[in-house]
Amino acid sequence: MQEFDLIARIRQRAAARGDVVLGIGDDCALLAPPPGMQLAVTMDALNAGVHFPPETAPADIGWKVLAVNLSDLAAMGAQPAWGTLSLSLPEADVAFVDAFFDGFFELAEQHGFALVGGDTTCGPLSIALTAHGLIEPGQALRRDGARAGDDVWVSGTLGDAAGALRQWQEGKGGEGKGGQSGFLSAKSHSDPLFSRLDRPVPRVALGRALRGIASSCIDVSDGLLADLAHICRASGAGADIDIDALPASAALRAAFDDETRRALQAAGGDDYELCFTAASTQREALQQLSVTLALPLACIGRIVAGSGVQCDGMDAAAGGYQHFA
Amino acid sequence: MQEFDLIARIRQRAAARGDVVLGIGDDCALLAPPPGMQLAVTMDALNAGVHFPPETAPADIGWKVLAVNLSDLAAMGAQPAWGTLSLSLPEADVAFVDAFFDGFFELAEQHGFALVGGDTTCGPLSIALTAHGLIEPGQALRRDGARAGDDVWVSGTLGDAAGALRQWQEGKGGEGKGGQSGFLSAKSHSDPLFSRLDRPVPRVALGRALRGIASSCIDVSDGLLADLAHICRASGAGADIDIDALPASAALRAAFDDETRRALQAAGGDDYELCFTAASTQREALQQLSVTLALPLACIGRIVAGSGVQCDGMDAAAGGYQHFA
Repeated sequence: MQEFDLIARIRQRAAARGDVVLGIGDDCALLAPPPGMQLAVTMDALNAGVHFPPETAPADIGWKVLAVNLSDLAAMGAQPAWGTLSLSLPEADVAFVDAFFDGFFELAEQHGFALVGGDTTCGPLSIALTAHGLIEPGQALRRDGARAGDDVWVSGTLGDAAGALRQWQEGKGGEGKGGQSGFLSAKSHSDPLFSRLDRPVPRVALGRALRGIASSCIDVSDGLLADLAHICRASGAGADIDIDALPASAALRAAFDDETRRALQAAGGDDYELCFTAASTQREALQQLSVTLALPLACIGRIVAGSGVQCDGMDAAAGGYQHFA
Repeated sequence: MQEFDLIARIRQRAAARGDVVLGIGDDCALLAPPPGMQLAVTMDALNAGVHFPPETAPADIGWKVLAVNLSDLAAMGAQPAWGTLSLSLPEADVAFVDAFFDGFFELAEQHGFALVGGDTTCGPLSIALTAHGLIEPGQALRRDGARAGDDVWVSGTLGDAAGALRQWQEGKGGEGKGGQSGFLSAKSHSDPLFSRLDRPVPRVALGRALRGIASSCIDVSDGLLADLAHICRASGAGADIDIDALPASAALRAAFDDETRRALQAAGGDDYELCFTAASTQREALQQLSVTLALPLACIGRIVAGSGVQCDGMDAAAGGYQHFA
């Protein structure tokens, strides 16, 4: 398969949008942003063996590279629109490419997201995506808006993806360090922890709904405490977190002892939940929103004067929570 | 150097623009496109050993990844605006990163181009850039507008970059196949062929000036005949090219015999000149433009009914010109 055949293959599957004047196939894509809207732009790359285990199913890689970028759009409150993809492959493997795009377009269709261009190159397996979203001027959920007295919230449950990664690293079931080839893809469709690792769900609807409610927001990709520290640094404030308030799934509780579970929740990355702050006057609105979206929202602490994140009275950076991150 | 230190280091050097609402440092950049303008978006990746020799100086890599993307914007007639960069590095090498951005920002400043975000990851050396440009609705230079009877033009000279690559591959001066380490960086600042390979100049001013004049346009990255074939395919037409009309630099003429030189001009990539078509009524305007921009513009053939590119009466795809591409 030549590069041009590959591009033609991708082009056939790319969805249309009214604001895409010209999609895949010229020197550039041409896009017509709706009048009065601003653009939110993010770019995240995934490298094999660094951001996902080499055994990860191609469809899960395709899903995940889009999910992590949509998660950044969600964290700004933006509506997903268009993307460009750089796909570096060791060889032109038709089966890999088709499966990759099965996963990619499955998620893209859920969000009306159009792939409009990109590049295919020969090299070690590496994927970079630039995602564009639309946001009303002044409505973006930035990191720098948290104020002392605000509540700190997090969506969904924490630690599931890191728990799956830990099980994989330990070769669950005595299969040896690093796990067996094929282990992940066999697990991913039945195990609730592995589905969080392989098929993260970007909280796009939540991000949109938080416009006008949240004072700051970030997605949990590096681990809750590390990501909340970014909000604190940008906002010139501190945070005080109650470790027992961090939400855990039943699967995580069943799989790990309490101490390990807490560390996974506090410092494990890759969950792609949203961590956000809001004035205490927003509590009722957020409880209602949780019901509307059928998504748990947990109040886990408070923004305080000062700097840094305290967790159960300990400095989070020195609290041993980085262990599994 | 940690990832966050690296990002802070890049952020300090990124230029401001009035339409950048929020640059590097949040989940997304926020951009305010000027009212009524469309976006031209392109993404090109460079992998070490595939798109540039491993010995290439870091500053030249930084320049080149921006140049190849600005060249795509130029080929659409767009004005460069913003970009996001994915930088995958085997190790956090401060000297490499600083030199890379010396080259990158040197070219960025020439075009008022703002770096607004991206990602730094650990992995084999690989760089992907997404570049955004602004273009008036309906004014973009697409590939599909060539019509039978149009002249075919090319800017500058062809084959220089491919000539340099060939000299490097042959280890000029008997230094052995593949050249010596350090050979390229030592050559690049004095040798006119190597400066074309390492520091390609995107034809942004020409692309902007061709709005309303050219009927189609593409940048010469894969080789003239291959790139012109894209115009022919998109336009549903053929092209008839006079091999002796292809412009050559004095350096290329001095370095190669006539047969090799012609093959390098016709099929060598990486020159990043613009190949475009225009009605014959535009000849005077183009001659005037060449003077204004101090950039040679050569009429090299004609668009004809049919399909495919003929070069001196031979089918270009079968003419042996791919040899050095």
